[in-house]
Amino acid sequence: MAADFPLLLVLDLAGTFAFALNGALVAVRAARLDLVGVVALGVTTAVGGGIIRDVLLGALPPATFSDWRYLAVAAAGGLLAFLFSGLLDRLATPIEVFDAAGLSLFAVVGAAKALEYGMGPAQAVILGALTGVGGGTLRDVLIRRVPTVLTSGLYAIPALVGALLAVLATRGDVDDVLGVPASLGAAAACFVIRMVGVRFDLHAPRAPGTRRGPATPPGGSAG
Amino acid sequence: MAADFPLLLVLDLAGTFAFALNGALVAVRAARLDLVGVVALGVTTAVGGGIIRDVLLGALPPATFSDWRYLAVAAAGGLLAFLFSGLLDRLATPIEVFDAAGLSLFAVVGAAKALEYGMGPAQAVILGALTGVGGGTLRDVLIRRVPTVLTSGLYAIPALVGALLAVLATRGDVDDVLGVPASLGAAAACFVIRMVGVRFDLHAPRAPGTRRGPATPPGGSAG
Amino acid sequence: MAADFPLLLVLDLAGTFAFALNGALVAVRAARLDLVGVVALGVTTAVGGGIIRDVLLGALPPATFSDWRYLAVAAAGGLLAFLFSGLLDRLATPIEVFDAAGLSLFAVVGAAKALEYGMGPAQAVILGALTGVGGGTLRDVLIRRVPTVLTSGLYAIPALVGALLAVLATRGDVDDVLGVPASLGAAAACFVIRMVGVRFDLHAPRAPGTRRGPATPPGGSAG
Repeated sequence: MAADFPLLLVLDLAGTFAFALNGALVAVRAARLDLVGVVALGVTTAVGGGIIRDVLLGALPPATFSDWRYLAVAAAGGLLAFLFSGLLDRLATPIEVFDAAGLSLFAVVGAAKALEYGMGPAQAVILGALTGVGGGTLRDVLIRRVPTVLTSGLYAIPALVGALLAVLATRGDVDDVLGVPASLGAAAACFVIRMVGVRFDLHAPRAPGTRRGPATPPGGSAG
Repeated sequence: MAADFPLLLVLDLAGTFAFALNGALVAVRAARLDLVGVVALGVTTAVGGGIIRDVLLGALPPATFSDWRYLAVAAAGGLLAFLFSGLLDRLATPIEVFDAAGLSLFAVVGAAKALEYGMGPAQAVILGALTGVGGGTLRDVLIRRVPTVLTSGLYAIPALVGALLAVLATRGDVDDVLGVPASLGAAAACFVIRMVGVRFDLHAPRAPGTRRGPATPPGGSAG
Repeated sequence: MAADFPLLLVLDLAGTFAFALNGALVAVRAARLDLVGVVALGVTTAVGGGIIRDVLLGALPPATFSDWRYLAVAAAGGLLAFLFSGLLDRLATPIEVFDAAGLSLFAVVGAAKALEYGMGPAQAVILGALTGVGGGTLRDVLIRRVPTVLTSGLYAIPALVGALLAVLATRGDVDDVLGVPASLGAAAACFVIRMVGVRFDLHAPRAPGTRRGPATPPGGSAG
């Protein structure tokens, strides 16, 4: 349980809050939903990755349900984003920043929790990345966008890097608990790579003979 | 297990049947699917909420699979809606009525089952609401509509109210089994609120400075 | 565990590979994704059905995560399809062929695994079909297509036939392990029915008074 490791719990709640702000802002701007829809999309974005992680680990019921703090933080984030969406607009690219923060924190926490549950190092890296991209993918499917993880080459890659660094920091050893500097370092690496990708609109190569086509939404790298 | 409480089982099967009719009618009208698609969408709508509930509770395999009655009722509802879609059209807004019935019954049953599995009262309310909205959300994602739960303010709220009343009726005490009048009362409250919302097209407030935009489908409150 | 039955493991890995090729080719052609998106969609298509199966069976963590061979085969299939998409284009309808192969193999393996986990024969048939159609449904939802299972009458039916033959071959008896000829026969029956459906664009009947409408995408039977 993340609850046994205060650090992981704090990072997990911070990621939950960042994704709740992100999902709710997307709901306000892109989908123009009402209060209930905004909070619902914020909460879904915030807890989606952790639920996918816990279902795949067999850690049921998910931490989100057995620990009320996740739902409280997620709902608070959604409400705040609804109330202050005008104010948040004045920050530079807040949607992308919150998305990258949630991605980074969840990738690290997800990988650490996977190791705790006895997954091998490769599986922990993949499950960490999946935890990071899961909530945003649910968000995009619900409002009918092709998920960022498919359209932006630099979304899955930073999540994999963050999870890999977290696994390396514990040397793949579950008893060697992830420390504060290593966790924050791994999350920071993920965050920086993601924001560089957003800033310069970087993509991975496409298959020979194909060009970017209409199935990719305009501004597909949006968070 | 719902099977230990005949009342919950009956309500659960009634909700399953209502959602199967709803999902299959949506498949016939909105998506113009063939027989297999109609039954598949009806069954998915009918069992989706319960599967999400049971996965999150860790009650695996879900009741849907271990108890053949759910699948039989869901498939029968889908087939009936396919055969008599012309007849059902003559009823007033049958799609919304079946959807509201399934929503109400599943919210109450979902909350009661969550208490049974040791969830706290707040979690039981949320899981009940999630059981109610889950099947319709899967249905909408599969036929590429923004889910009703996001676009209609009065879809999640009645589900939360129904689940809350069910939890209050048991005083949050798992041994204090939900009785017939309390269950039906909680479900009726949810149903009435939902149908008032459909009739008067009520919505929750939107964020300041935003208007309803093109991402919300026309007639977004449809069930 | 499939790992105890080498035959089921081999068929499962073959289905994983076929679906990875299929999902990645769809990503290259229909959605024009970049390398990361192509591999991600290939892997999701490949492991999605098995994850749904294992979650519903309560066999967690899913085989995909506890056994690295699934992820390795899926990633290899996705990469190969990315690199050789031009070459694969010259084969006749490779997307449909790989999809039908994955559908057939997963329906048989899914039904056998469900019996192993104590499901009844009816549930095993349904879970087998769900394993077959699950990965392609996730693929279609992620790239915003109405899933093939809803739009093509001859997608769920061959999966159900393949799963039914697999269950009949074991006489519903979990100790009566599925043999090589029976497994391959059941998978072949599913494959042939599916490809006949693709070739002649066969559909199940529609509800009286409805016609095929705009909600069904053009070429909806594509794999």
